[in-house]
Amino acid sequence: MTANLTAAIMIVGNEILSGRTQDVNIQFLADRLGQRGIKLAEVRIVRDEEAAIVKAARELGKEYTYVFSTGGIGPTHDDITTDCIAKAFNTPIEINAEAKRRMEEYYAPKGITLNESRLRMARIPVGATLIDNPVSIAPGFKLGNVYVLAGVPKIMQAMFLTFEHTLAQGKPMLSNTVSCSLREGDIGVELGQIQEQFPDVEIGSYPSTTPAGDPHLSLVLRATDETPLQAATNKVAEMVKALDENLSIAYQRPAVLHTA
Amino acid sequence: MTANLTAAIMIVGNEILSGRTQDVNIQFLADRLGQRGIKLAEVRIVRDEEAAIVKAARELGKEYTYVFSTGGIGPTHDDITTDCIAKAFNTPIEINAEAKRRMEEYYAPKGITLNESRLRMARIPVGATLIDNPVSIAPGFKLGNVYVLAGVPKIMQAMFLTFEHTLAQGKPMLSNTVSCSLREGDIGVELGQIQEQFPDVEIGSYPSTTPAGDPHLSLVLRATDETPLQAATNKVAEMVKALDENLSIAYQRPAVLHTA
Repeated sequence: MTANLTAAIMIVGNEILSGRTQDVNIQFLADRLGQRGIKLAEVRIVRDEEAAIVKAARELGKEYTYVFSTGGIGPTHDDITTDCIAKAFNTPIEINAEAKRRMEEYYAPKGITLNESRLRMARIPVGATLIDNPVSIAPGFKLGNVYVLAGVPKIMQAMFLTFEHTLAQGKPMLSNTVSCSLREGDIGVELGQIQEQFPDVEIGSYPSTTPAGDPHLSLVLRATDETPLQAATNKVAEMVKALDENLSIAYQRPAVLHTA
Repeated sequence: MTANLTAAIMIVGNEILSGRTQDVNIQFLADRLGQRGIKLAEVRIVRDEEAAIVKAARELGKEYTYVFSTGGIGPTHDDITTDCIAKAFNTPIEINAEAKRRMEEYYAPKGITLNESRLRMARIPVGATLIDNPVSIAPGFKLGNVYVLAGVPKIMQAMFLTFEHTLAQGKPMLSNTVSCSLREGDIGVELGQIQEQFPDVEIGSYPSTTPAGDPHLSLVLRATDETPLQAATNKVAEMVKALDENLSIAYQRPAVLHTA
């Protein structure tokens, strides 16, 4: 169990920045990392330009335990992530023999040619470790603390699950949600006072509106330890109950408690 | 008409980083900015921590024409964006008389008290310009080139629409999409050659899989000028047609052509 494990996601994505595509990779990674006790601390979405990708990879790689890069490792000219990561680490690129072998073996029975375009996907920085691709074979790779994954959600997720068990483990985040029909402004000061009493519990306040137009408020408490989490939740529930009797409390716990 | 207008989004969002909430603000802003000819060049999602927000605001503010910040301006203790932006600009905060007046006027007939929590939302950096909030009154603000907006999508969108017409205008991005059932690897090299011939057209290749499991490929061409865009689209369509007769082409143009 390691303390203070952090992660960043770097999304290489003109298609997200243009509004064409709605990102769904952040939520998957945030959820899986949280369950493993790794705190997702930052996300950057950068354009498909060398300078932007190299800069983000270097900065995030220095600041966080892990960086997960998604997108830009396919066979077309706009797939420049591999070259940028190699540059960020000052490492040359080569045709990786094992990546090439896997692709030949996979494509041959399908009648797909390992042409120049596809061979681009066997270009891997020297010294990197391959990341398996159970969906469409062309691998990702890990270089230093940067994991380079595909952008297509189905492939990204399958890749992540192949190495998830090798990531260091922190204490998974536990979370309780107190839901009520108050407005944030009804309880702002009081909630802040509870937050001050429980520095190890992160309390977030998320207002919304029901389809009928009524206020709805989710007060989310997150911590790695049950004891302060429950104590803080009790305080919040008590404070809410004085104003709104119809509160409810939901308890979110990791689906799988990983053991080392 | 101004050339090279760029923008960044800073999302202050523990709820996004924890996986609790799926962001939908990026796509709205990307789309609106694109129609106005402002290129969304970077997005950062940062945690609700002063150091992270101040750093991102300063860095993005220096690098891009506009920064749009979403989230963290409500009445609870975890709403620290206003203080962080003030700090990033070395500006003090005060209770803004006009913001307070608007809130009093709006809350009074609803029987809502302008208590200490709500009054927090009238705290605005000195020298900032208020941004109207047509949904729930408590204003955002503009300081320097940073627009500070609410995180709730409905409120963020309403705020943006109040000042959209005041943003500088670039040439709106035009876009054509050639769709076919090829695999990216079938045409990677050829597509790259077309990209080299048309440096003013940005060509992106986005593979996916149909529900039936067949390959689908969207080749998206984007440019500010019709002539090179059409010429490049014709080249791509010709190249695809030699391999897949069932291609289709879609033309995306700004819904509203703004005039200054």
